[in-house]
Amino acid sequence: MTNLWPEQYAGSQQCSVHLPSYISGYVDGEGCFTVSISPRPTLSVGWEVRPGFSVSQNGDRDEVLLVIQEYFGCGTIRPDRSDRTVKWETRSLVPLLERVLPHFQRYPLMSGKQRDVELFGGICFRMARGEHRTMAGLHAIAHDASEMNPSGKRRYRLADIIGAGVEMKA
Amino acid sequence: MTNLWPEQYAGSQQCSVHLPSYISGYVDGEGCFTVSISPRPTLSVGWEVRPGFSVSQNGDRDEVLLVIQEYFGCGTIRPDRSDRTVKWETRSLVPLLERVLPHFQRYPLMSGKQRDVELFGGICFRMARGEHRTMAGLHAIAHDASEMNPSGKRRYRLADIIGAGVEMKA
Repeated sequence: MTNLWPEQYAGSQQCSVHLPSYISGYVDGEGCFTVSISPRPTLSVGWEVRPGFSVSQNGDRDEVLLVIQEYFGCGTIRPDRSDRTVKWETRSLVPLLERVLPHFQRYPLMSGKQRDVELFGGICFRMARGEHRTMAGLHAIAHDASEMNPSGKRRYRLADIIGAGVEMKA
Repeated sequence: MTNLWPEQYAGSQQCSVHLPSYISGYVDGEGCFTVSISPRPTLSVGWEVRPGFSVSQNGDRDEVLLVIQEYFGCGTIRPDRSDRTVKWETRSLVPLLERVLPHFQRYPLMSGKQRDVELFGGICFRMARGEHRTMAGLHAIAHDASEMNPSGKRRYRLADIIGAGVEMKA
């Protein structure tokens, strides 16, 4: 990119961005932590739990998403035609546990979104222990997931999941 | 905020966010640099040039905006009911030149939005030299402003401003 800075600024200061902090700042605005819980009759509890962490960039640009993909060493980038953004997303438990969550403990978000990160982290740890494969574990996960992203869309409500569990147990 | 991290993470790493880099990351997602040019018959060139730098936060939360306001030491925070966001904004030339622009030279944005910052910076420096009060300077500023935020809304096009100037000179 051509340097468009006025001459007054030229050479006066060195660039010195701290990448992990920059990424946390970007994620505070554009990141989304979700846990989707969908019916899956072939599973013993009847529901599949899938954690996901995505970051959006407006327009057709993906500069920051490429930096984030390289930094976390996981995830895929794809255009989201529904809202004209590009999204980087990872839904794999191991990189979430080993790379993403330790990052946000060390470089936490400053907004209330950090609470989502912590609920999300707790759910990922429960999944690592296999708790999503028991009815009690599924309900605890569904409860915490229902407290995340209060303004987000939900396909299934907490009552749907717990109600279906009661039916299965009956 | 209650610490919701699983015990495995407790005390394992210290928080160490670098605030200036965090702010640049946040601004890369949620910041907007604008130069509005509006008719003002009482001014000798007939148009008023106003630079503005704003940062949005979704929902009713303003944690990061308060941090940004304190960091730059200027600007005001207000709810924007049109899109259910809260915005911090500064439109004063002196803090833009003395605090905001040096920050983004030292901690530049990683996306193409950095080009907006540099065009914006050039316009602010021209205004500091009074160039917006001459017809040639106004046209140069309007030209650079027309290259910023290509997806943004514009009330007056470059041709409107230059056309009006030609009429005034005639």
